[in-house]
Amino acid sequence: MASGLVTPAEARARAENLLGVVPDTNLGFARIDNDREARQGFPEVIFGQGKTPAQVAAIAAHIVGRGQPLLVTRTGAEAWNEVAKVVPDAVFHQTARIIERRLSQQALQGAILIAAAGTSDIPVAEEAAISAEVMGHVVERLYDVGVAGLHRLLAERDRLRAADIIIVVAGMEGALASVVGGLVRVPVVAVPTSVGYGASFGGLAALLAMLNSCAAGVAVVNIDNGYGAAAFASAVLRQRHPHR
Amino acid sequence: MASGLVTPAEARARAENLLGVVPDTNLGFARIDNDREARQGFPEVIFGQGKTPAQVAAIAAHIVGRGQPLLVTRTGAEAWNEVAKVVPDAVFHQTARIIERRLSQQALQGAILIAAAGTSDIPVAEEAAISAEVMGHVVERLYDVGVAGLHRLLAERDRLRAADIIIVVAGMEGALASVVGGLVRVPVVAVPTSVGYGASFGGLAALLAMLNSCAAGVAVVNIDNGYGAAAFASAVLRQRHPHR
Amino acid sequence: MASGLVTPAEARARAENLLGVVPDTNLGFARIDNDREARQGFPEVIFGQGKTPAQVAAIAAHIVGRGQPLLVTRTGAEAWNEVAKVVPDAVFHQTARIIERRLSQQALQGAILIAAAGTSDIPVAEEAAISAEVMGHVVERLYDVGVAGLHRLLAERDRLRAADIIIVVAGMEGALASVVGGLVRVPVVAVPTSVGYGASFGGLAALLAMLNSCAAGVAVVNIDNGYGAAAFASAVLRQRHPHR
Amino acid sequence: MASGLVTPAEARARAENLLGVVPDTNLGFARIDNDREARQGFPEVIFGQGKTPAQVAAIAAHIVGRGQPLLVTRTGAEAWNEVAKVVPDAVFHQTARIIERRLSQQALQGAILIAAAGTSDIPVAEEAAISAEVMGHVVERLYDVGVAGLHRLLAERDRLRAADIIIVVAGMEGALASVVGGLVRVPVVAVPTSVGYGASFGGLAALLAMLNSCAAGVAVVNIDNGYGAAAFASAVLRQRHPHR
Amino acid sequence: MASGLVTPAEARARAENLLGVVPDTNLGFARIDNDREARQGFPEVIFGQGKTPAQVAAIAAHIVGRGQPLLVTRTGAEAWNEVAKVVPDAVFHQTARIIERRLSQQALQGAILIAAAGTSDIPVAEEAAISAEVMGHVVERLYDVGVAGLHRLLAERDRLRAADIIIVVAGMEGALASVVGGLVRVPVVAVPTSVGYGASFGGLAALLAMLNSCAAGVAVVNIDNGYGAAAFASAVLRQRHPHR
Amino acid sequence: MASGLVTPAEARARAENLLGVVPDTNLGFARIDNDREARQGFPEVIFGQGKTPAQVAAIAAHIVGRGQPLLVTRTGAEAWNEVAKVVPDAVFHQTARIIERRLSQQALQGAILIAAAGTSDIPVAEEAAISAEVMGHVVERLYDVGVAGLHRLLAERDRLRAADIIIVVAGMEGALASVVGGLVRVPVVAVPTSVGYGASFGGLAALLAMLNSCAAGVAVVNIDNGYGAAAFASAVLRQRHPHR
Amino acid sequence: MASGLVTPAEARARAENLLGVVPDTNLGFARIDNDREARQGFPEVIFGQGKTPAQVAAIAAHIVGRGQPLLVTRTGAEAWNEVAKVVPDAVFHQTARIIERRLSQQALQGAILIAAAGTSDIPVAEEAAISAEVMGHVVERLYDVGVAGLHRLLAERDRLRAADIIIVVAGMEGALASVVGGLVRVPVVAVPTSVGYGASFGGLAALLAMLNSCAAGVAVVNIDNGYGAAAFASAVLRQRHPHR
Amino acid sequence: MASGLVTPAEARARAENLLGVVPDTNLGFARIDNDREARQGFPEVIFGQGKTPAQVAAIAAHIVGRGQPLLVTRTGAEAWNEVAKVVPDAVFHQTARIIERRLSQQALQGAILIAAAGTSDIPVAEEAAISAEVMGHVVERLYDVGVAGLHRLLAERDRLRAADIIIVVAGMEGALASVVGGLVRVPVVAVPTSVGYGASFGGLAALLAMLNSCAAGVAVVNIDNGYGAAAFASAVLRQRHPHR
Repeated sequence: MASGLVTPAEARARAENLLGVVPDTNLGFARIDNDREARQGFPEVIFGQGKTPAQVAAIAAHIVGRGQPLLVTRTGAEAWNEVAKVVPDAVFHQTARIIERRLSQQALQGAILIAAAGTSDIPVAEEAAISAEVMGHVVERLYDVGVAGLHRLLAERDRLRAADIIIVVAGMEGALASVVGGLVRVPVVAVPTSVGYGASFGGLAALLAMLNSCAAGVAVVNIDNGYGAAAFASAVLRQRHPHR
Repeated sequence: MASGLVTPAEARARAENLLGVVPDTNLGFARIDNDREARQGFPEVIFGQGKTPAQVAAIAAHIVGRGQPLLVTRTGAEAWNEVAKVVPDAVFHQTARIIERRLSQQALQGAILIAAAGTSDIPVAEEAAISAEVMGHVVERLYDVGVAGLHRLLAERDRLRAADIIIVVAGMEGALASVVGGLVRVPVVAVPTSVGYGASFGGLAALLAMLNSCAAGVAVVNIDNGYGAAAFASAVLRQRHPHR
Repeated sequence: MASGLVTPAEARARAENLLGVVPDTNLGFARIDNDREARQGFPEVIFGQGKTPAQVAAIAAHIVGRGQPLLVTRTGAEAWNEVAKVVPDAVFHQTARIIERRLSQQALQGAILIAAAGTSDIPVAEEAAISAEVMGHVVERLYDVGVAGLHRLLAERDRLRAADIIIVVAGMEGALASVVGGLVRVPVVAVPTSVGYGASFGGLAALLAMLNSCAAGVAVVNIDNGYGAAAFASAVLRQRHPHR
Repeated sequence: MASGLVTPAEARARAENLLGVVPDTNLGFARIDNDREARQGFPEVIFGQGKTPAQVAAIAAHIVGRGQPLLVTRTGAEAWNEVAKVVPDAVFHQTARIIERRLSQQALQGAILIAAAGTSDIPVAEEAAISAEVMGHVVERLYDVGVAGLHRLLAERDRLRAADIIIVVAGMEGALASVVGGLVRVPVVAVPTSVGYGASFGGLAALLAMLNSCAAGVAVVNIDNGYGAAAFASAVLRQRHPHR
Repeated sequence: MASGLVTPAEARARAENLLGVVPDTNLGFARIDNDREARQGFPEVIFGQGKTPAQVAAIAAHIVGRGQPLLVTRTGAEAWNEVAKVVPDAVFHQTARIIERRLSQQALQGAILIAAAGTSDIPVAEEAAISAEVMGHVVERLYDVGVAGLHRLLAERDRLRAADIIIVVAGMEGALASVVGGLVRVPVVAVPTSVGYGASFGGLAALLAMLNSCAAGVAVVNIDNGYGAAAFASAVLRQRHPHR
Repeated sequence: MASGLVTPAEARARAENLLGVVPDTNLGFARIDNDREARQGFPEVIFGQGKTPAQVAAIAAHIVGRGQPLLVTRTGAEAWNEVAKVVPDAVFHQTARIIERRLSQQALQGAILIAAAGTSDIPVAEEAAISAEVMGHVVERLYDVGVAGLHRLLAERDRLRAADIIIVVAGMEGALASVVGGLVRVPVVAVPTSVGYGASFGGLAALLAMLNSCAAGVAVVNIDNGYGAAAFASAVLRQRHPHR
Repeated sequence: MASGLVTPAEARARAENLLGVVPDTNLGFARIDNDREARQGFPEVIFGQGKTPAQVAAIAAHIVGRGQPLLVTRTGAEAWNEVAKVVPDAVFHQTARIIERRLSQQALQGAILIAAAGTSDIPVAEEAAISAEVMGHVVERLYDVGVAGLHRLLAERDRLRAADIIIVVAGMEGALASVVGGLVRVPVVAVPTSVGYGASFGGLAALLAMLNSCAAGVAVVNIDNGYGAAAFASAVLRQRHPHR
Repeated sequence: MASGLVTPAEARARAENLLGVVPDTNLGFARIDNDREARQGFPEVIFGQGKTPAQVAAIAAHIVGRGQPLLVTRTGAEAWNEVAKVVPDAVFHQTARIIERRLSQQALQGAILIAAAGTSDIPVAEEAAISAEVMGHVVERLYDVGVAGLHRLLAERDRLRAADIIIVVAGMEGALASVVGGLVRVPVVAVPTSVGYGASFGGLAALLAMLNSCAAGVAVVNIDNGYGAAAFASAVLRQRHPHR
């Protein structure tokens, strides 16, 4: 237990070395995980909710300064005002609630199809879509294909089957995940949304439905977590091309 | 407030008269609602759960003695032993957990289609089917047509559309109700079942999904309540022929 | 799996043909289900919540342009401003939160009685009432007949029994559904409302009560879902006159 | 803080003196609250669940030895075997799951009416009835008067109004509490029961319904807590005769 | 079933006669239960939440016009503006959120003690206090006696024991109900409040605690339902003097 | 709507043709989805729970008769007795509760690492492991590496990073998913288990924790759903080799 | 029971004497527990939520007037305006939502380390930190060390082990508590926060995770209860030096 | 990322070295955390639930073989049979469900007082008591001191205040934690138990109550987690004597 023989800085360096990580940057209110890209394939993403505009802008400036792509989720106009001052060429997507600055790069192989059940689910679907694009992926959008009009979905069966991975975004009863899951052999990442009212209980109904899907090949992320679905899909596609 | 001027028996008679009801029979542990058939279209049904075999048999004997059809739900072999002694020509359906004795009558018009998502949902579907048959209805069964293999359901689209009312029985994510609801114009009565595990929470997932169905024309009964769905469907079909 | 031999458009056409559906119109953010009326008896209804006023107006214009009745639920003054520009003769019902434009037609046979437990339940009851009227049905209103003053309900027993189907709208403990259900032979569609506080948990208490109704012939829709009850009742009444 | 100047026994005595209480008896696994009758109007009642038969019998012997009435709730045949050895004239009520030995005394004034919705609710109703009788009250039973057959209840309106306090015992949707509460001016103590299945969630549906009762004058005890309702009713009636 | 032989008005009259009730007044949006006082001991109380100011004022005017005491709960300044126009001598209690106009009458016998755990519970406690006063009862207030400083409560033991009935108002963990319940022989009506945060879940923690009270003689009303506790206490005290 | 011009058999054939599916086999209680392998990459899997041993055996015989691999999950000794009669070379894995008969085939490329937090999680982990092996994958097991002894996990960091996809199986607080998710760039499929007690609420605690994981690249399946995780992982790995 | 022989004031004094407490001050809306410091080691803390600014200021003035340290939690600018008038040298911490005035004293022995998982958790962490400092403790802050970047935490292992007690503040999945708990031998007080969305259910996910921690030596306080964690830690450290 | 340059064994050793840990022993189904005592103050404890008797015995033998104290929780007679074969001098405590073999050592300084509300809470209290004794602490037991008879607790006030830390064990409404918390200045660890029924929801009521305690200095562990409370108390007391 006598780790007192090394100084704190040495201990930190030794730990970082053992874990093979790049040291983080401590801004006081945040420690930027500079090793994230090496370790996980994409640099640290800023979760905007609960952070002040000034905090968001400071972290954004640091990330951009390191030449990394910028992705801020669950953010708004107020933070955008601050970020624009320090990252002038960033872009704000109002529907998706995302601020981003993507790097010019060749698109990664493999297409992500994002299927949304209803028009009200589009903000979450766009959070997934923009996030995936910033991560370097080709995204196809298939919106308003809820199961109440099944022919709208079946008519797009070929697009469904042509995708490499599918993100299904649905609120209310969330049945779209099971229906899509039963039609394709590719992995389906299901995103329940809080669209609905009453016994939807803020997305709980869709969440439980998706977790209980009778179709194989469906996994679920948090309610309204479009970004999380994109990150998972990105991890899957990167696996397809492990040498990238 | 001075209702003391009439005797209790008079008061009871006066109330029954006002409400236009047939007096009930008081067995001590149960008051048999002899007016139920006139008032609601079908005599009192015995909910077996929580009653002793002797209680079930006593009520059954009374109902049969009045020349009415007998229907005991959520019952088992133990009660069946007692009922068989007093109603020798009753029938016990083990899967449906029903004891019944139906009257020979002409079948009522209109067909009830019962669609069940999986093999494990059959006990609840059979509770609905047998109950509806005892109530005098024609029943069609369409079992194991869950949405994971959508073609099994779509291949039966004509049967779905030919029904006068559809009862959908499904556990897990309960998506079948929405899919069927989107395909037909007839009313769909959804029965969530407790089939599943984990985050199905005893049928809660299917219940919430069905309540949040994006398809119009879907209403829901309690988890595993096959009988309730049959009773509701029966009320609908009787409405089609209001003079019966 | 080699469905690549047909073009996407051909595949879509083939699917629509097989399913016997009219093609949908893709507005980008919404695919309008033009086949809805043929398939389900009433054209697509616009769920206003979560859609921008511009989206609502665009869909409304399309529906009205096809000569179909317009029904927008869960909407407000902001959307009304936009819709009024493109559908000048539409009507906005503030209490019911509905924008509608009904077709002049002969009323369908069969009456829907809407019984509401308290004054605070009227907005949901009106959502059901206006929706049913737009669908072509005769609606009777029976408001503020909660079970705390049972004589108010019993005094209207004849109106209850004269209805072809009853929609019961109640918050708090939702007992009205069971009491009405025990008095009539017609189907009862129960709508729990979020009226209440504390342990009503946003309508959960009424929802659970209605699902556990000891009266036969009661089915339930989502909390505050007046429209859903109307759509279900409409499906039932259309069944009564299957050739319409 | 220096209370060490008094011995523990002195401190205990001083506290008991201050609070004006009779000292308790420490059996090691239980401290019998000998002051309970003076303080609360009835001696300590043994909650049988979770206690071994030997523990129940030891406490029972102590209570009877002090000349007090004995009441053991939520108990069974196993404990009964042990208690019978030490309190030979005790009585075991199987349905009510109660062991008791009541004192011969003049009945207290005031009648408790116990109304139970269904036959399956009788065990809880009997727990209340027997408990109240052991506490010295007159009890009237009104069983199987659920709201699905309202005339059964209305026919007994005079008995309802003649009671001094009413205990309503109901599972499923628990609507009986509201209906009774709206008919009478006496206090109504509602006992939700776990009778039901599916979305009754072990009595939660009835509990929430009763808590949200739109009728004034209704208060609620725990699910299946027949004893608690009796104890509360007893406190109310004792208040009517404060000098007893 | 052929009740068509009487006109609706006759049927209504006949029902009212049978039930021995005074006919209600139908304002369209509300049916005023004019029989409430005869039947339940106090006239109809207006639940302000969810009603428009105009609706509240119209009902208030009707009640006052009949010479009855006025009590509007869960109301605010906006409704108060309307009511003041039609009932100029009404009083608005901002903390209690009550509008009332009490009749000059002799106070009823028996005292209600209202014990509140913390300062933040006072609004609910005052809802109970003002309601009880309008109903004609003597009210004593004992505020900020939460169990964290038990001596504050124990010091008032004599006032607790002198009361005829006690209303305990507490949020957070709601332990005050059990502690008071264990000290007195009078009935304790427990009101959980939504005071708290996090795992209080809007009062659920206090509600469950009170329902599970280990003290005998405790019954519970809905979260924040000060009025309900007062109405229940009033029913108890009226029972003490049944001839009033 | 006049689909009556084709016979039911024709309609079925036409639907199957359109959807490009192999017709299913109807055993009465089950419709075997013979197209499942073509459509989804693996033939129908038998969910044993809720099926009778005879039903399981009949479906198993059909699947084996078609030359497909057999996989029965959530099964037991009783079903095993029946299956062994008709599929003599099947194998029963007691811990995993699986009956299987795998085909001799070359292992698919790509390794699935299954990390389980505790010894009690092994049954669920084994359900995943055996399922994945039957699907043709190489499986590595890393058991008892819960976060309470983090060095056990960190010591295996290279194995974690060498995997193509990781399945994390954990009950209690489920923290292992987040910790692993933060260490690797491959997709992590999290399986909450019902291991735990009290506030684990049958696995709810682990489920919620995994859904809220702060690590990117984590998706979740149902509680105890080892099979589902394997099926999802299999879909991901098959994507890596899309021409298989 | 005849405690009427003493006056209320005498009874109060006698109780206070028995319990060895200093009498409280009754402000009408609040009874200030002047004995709190003697009994619990720190004077009464004002829970600002639900109190009016005037109430907060009045209590604050009383406490400061007694020469005690002032601590108001869950407060804001409005209360601050009032308090500043009566306690001019108080300080308002906006992020921590605390108003305080600490006494100049020697710091107590023992250090509290506060580890927060993310930047959004800082307000709760600061509530704990400021509270602990006002109570006289040395506080170390370790912020943004969530488990997604484990090296950030491991690099600070020596600081973790050097602390006398650790407060872990985390929302989302709350895994930090288990990871820290597994690394150290000192007690860990876990504070779940409401940071998150969707299935975090206002902090429920983190709360359940922390309660189910597989690491020994972890105890939990309410969601967002930074103050409670500080108070508990303070009690622990005071125990280390029992003679203070 | 190229950690392939070291062998797995080297990597493991390097990690163990960095973390300063003793290597674990891998039994296949379990990795015994041999470093636990050095890192956390007490060796690995066996959580018996979900482990086979053979697994328990194997781990027990390993721990005893290393000369460490043995503690198996949540175990039973079946495991005891196996453990007794390999650790003949182990002891089985049936009520506490613990198998243990403690080392002869001098008792650690500081006393743990365990207060249990009712007789039914004793098994959980004993789990805490035995665990703490095996960890080397002096334990005092104060059983059946629930708040319904407050004098039983107040009479023991001096014992409460003399303890160094208090574990409060209570089911039902769990009020004992708040009452004790308000009386003492030492830390209180609250253990909710599943004792109760109905709305106790398996201990949820007590858990929520304890989390919402209005008394300062209370922290909570999982429902029925007597061991966890002991482990936490042990960590606190070891802090008092940091050089041990």
